[in-house]
Amino acid sequence: MKIAVLPGDGIGPEVTREAVRVIEALGLPDIEMKEAPVGGAAYKAYGHPLPAETLEIARLSDGILFGAVGDPDCDSLERHLRPEQAILGLRKELTLFANLRPAKVFAGLEGHSALRPEVAGAIDMVIVRELNGDVYFGEKGFRTAANGDREGYDVMSYNESEVRRIAHVGFRTAMGRNKRLCSVDKANVLETSQLWRDVVIEVAKEYPEVTLEHMYVDNAAMQLVRAPGKFDVVLTGNLFGDILSDQASMCVGSIGLLASASLGERQTAHGTFGLYEPIHGSAPDIAGQGLANPLATILSAAMLLRHSLGLATAADRVEAAVAKTLADGVLGRDLGGTAGTTEIGDAVLARL
Amino acid sequence: MKIAVLPGDGIGPEVTREAVRVIEALGLPDIEMKEAPVGGAAYKAYGHPLPAETLEIARLSDGILFGAVGDPDCDSLERHLRPEQAILGLRKELTLFANLRPAKVFAGLEGHSALRPEVAGAIDMVIVRELNGDVYFGEKGFRTAANGDREGYDVMSYNESEVRRIAHVGFRTAMGRNKRLCSVDKANVLETSQLWRDVVIEVAKEYPEVTLEHMYVDNAAMQLVRAPGKFDVVLTGNLFGDILSDQASMCVGSIGLLASASLGERQTAHGTFGLYEPIHGSAPDIAGQGLANPLATILSAAMLLRHSLGLATAADRVEAAVAKTLADGVLGRDLGGTAGTTEIGDAVLARL
Ligand SMILES: CC(C)[C@H](C(=O)O)[C@@H](O)C(=O)O
Ligand SMILES: CC(C)[C@H](C(=O)O)[C@@H](O)C(=O)O
Repeated sequence: MKIAVLPGDGIGPEVTREAVRVIEALGLPDIEMKEAPVGGAAYKAYGHPLPAETLEIARLSDGILFGAVGDPDCDSLERHLRPEQAILGLRKELTLFANLRPAKVFAGLEGHSALRPEVAGAIDMVIVRELNGDVYFGEKGFRTAANGDREGYDVMSYNESEVRRIAHVGFRTAMGRNKRLCSVDKANVLETSQLWRDVVIEVAKEYPEVTLEHMYVDNAAMQLVRAPGKFDVVLTGNLFGDILSDQASMCVGSIGLLASASLGERQTAHGTFGLYEPIHGSAPDIAGQGLANPLATILSAAMLLRHSLGLATAADRVEAAVAKTLADGVLGRDLGGTAGTTEIGDAVLARL
Repeated sequence: MKIAVLPGDGIGPEVTREAVRVIEALGLPDIEMKEAPVGGAAYKAYGHPLPAETLEIARLSDGILFGAVGDPDCDSLERHLRPEQAILGLRKELTLFANLRPAKVFAGLEGHSALRPEVAGAIDMVIVRELNGDVYFGEKGFRTAANGDREGYDVMSYNESEVRRIAHVGFRTAMGRNKRLCSVDKANVLETSQLWRDVVIEVAKEYPEVTLEHMYVDNAAMQLVRAPGKFDVVLTGNLFGDILSDQASMCVGSIGLLASASLGERQTAHGTFGLYEPIHGSAPDIAGQGLANPLATILSAAMLLRHSLGLATAADRVEAAVAKTLADGVLGRDLGGTAGTTEIGDAVLARL
């Protein structure tokens, strides 16, 4: 079984290193890890944020462990050369269409949220975000408007199969949880959303046990502040999912602990092909100083073991070791503690 | 001076009635108020959510006092007949392009936010949202995708003059406050945002005293949870503004107190033509029961007096009376009190 390791920029390499150590320490047979450059680091070394070799290593793997991309040095590059294009390219080229973002407060850490502890403590949801369509990948560019002005434009769209595919992921996720699905759109304004809603309603017939609700995105943004604990599974498109999943993560209060999976269509020998990454970014301001919290990346590795390699027991072990590390008070600076990157990695290893 | 009063649906008529009483009680000379149907109510009576006569009364006024639209009876109507089209139609037909939404916690009401009181208490911002462009008003419809599927699409776009016009409102608003402007976009993905950003940077040259920052919308949604008190003026497009302004309102915790202005280009005798409405919706579940809090609509009326009629002193009087009403503990059910719609209206009148 092959894991592609793509550390990327900023704190990416340091947090990924700890996750790799954890996977190695599990002593699993037949695991091969292969590292490849991505993002600003790849641009600097090879002139492109997603070199063909990196894409190939990722494509031939069973699962991808991804650090973070983003590098202020690259801010003035043309769009197609910027670090962010690496993650967009991987998602699109490898048909990683289903982004799963669990948001749940770790017991004892409710106080780190800006929300009142009883509000934050109730959060336990998964956001299912579509990743291959929407205004992200439609036709876009600049043109001359009727008044002679320069105009920027981007076409938003979804077709039936795109929505159907992600809707099934949403309903299946709900079936494995509390059987409540909230589909978020802006159907009072957008035809893309109207089609989204029509297809979700159609797919719902195959999941009679799941309670389906539709919510406008503006209302969803409000409810995520007012009572985030009321959500079970949230299903939404690429753009709204980008906004709402980040909002939900911040509600939890400990963004250095949140992992995500981006799953594809292809089945591996024991699971589903996917890319796994912490939801935090490359944090260039603290890069290379050993200050970053590696737990979100370690938890991303656990998701990889579970979903792409079918190693549920190993994933459980990692998650338990992380929970124990936190319960023992080994906290990074992001949680008001003093533990550094390696120290946190060591603590997890010791508790495996 | 003419005020068009458009009560609309649900609790719209009852909250608007109190605002009208407040305006009448001010005993201002030369104020003429004219009521007209809008939304589901107008559809039921005249077959259209924005009848031509209503649009004309609105157009010929100096300012519009708007209640709320939205009626579950109309859910299955074709899009162009639904109540929401009335507000979209007014914005577009009357070139009401600049939506100003102040979000500030009323002293003593910090505890009503889901955010921790010290986080909520620090909120004092204005969101400036563009209302006439973006994916709201671009070409949209259904078409057949390359794979033969049905596809919904909506074109997002902004041209230079559209962005320039709203950017000036943003910078001028910042000049009247703490001189910090945060422009929110998604320029790492959208060309519409790239153009937005280019124009905002260009307009910034005319306001050297204002500190300009650019933030991606996903990050803005996070920062509005983490530290909403750090924002002064937020400038953004129609779609992102819809989401972020609702999120910000909920952060304040007392949505029944928040007013908004949608300003046009036309100058009236003493100000700017505009539409004023509470940010809450039509709340059909409590409509007609005298339970709704009219303060957001009364504060919207104060904004109308100030911005469209140039009656700053009268506006100050209304705002002071509202503050006094709250300080005296006359609270609606939304704030844990027992006061009904008329009772709150009476309390404001008594304190004018
Ligand atoms: C970096 C950016 C293009 C990306 C996105 O918008 O999808 C990021 O915000 C994310 O959510 O993974
Ligand atoms: C009713 C709807 C069309 C409208 C919008 O999306 O603009 C509303 O949400 C608002 O913010 O005023």
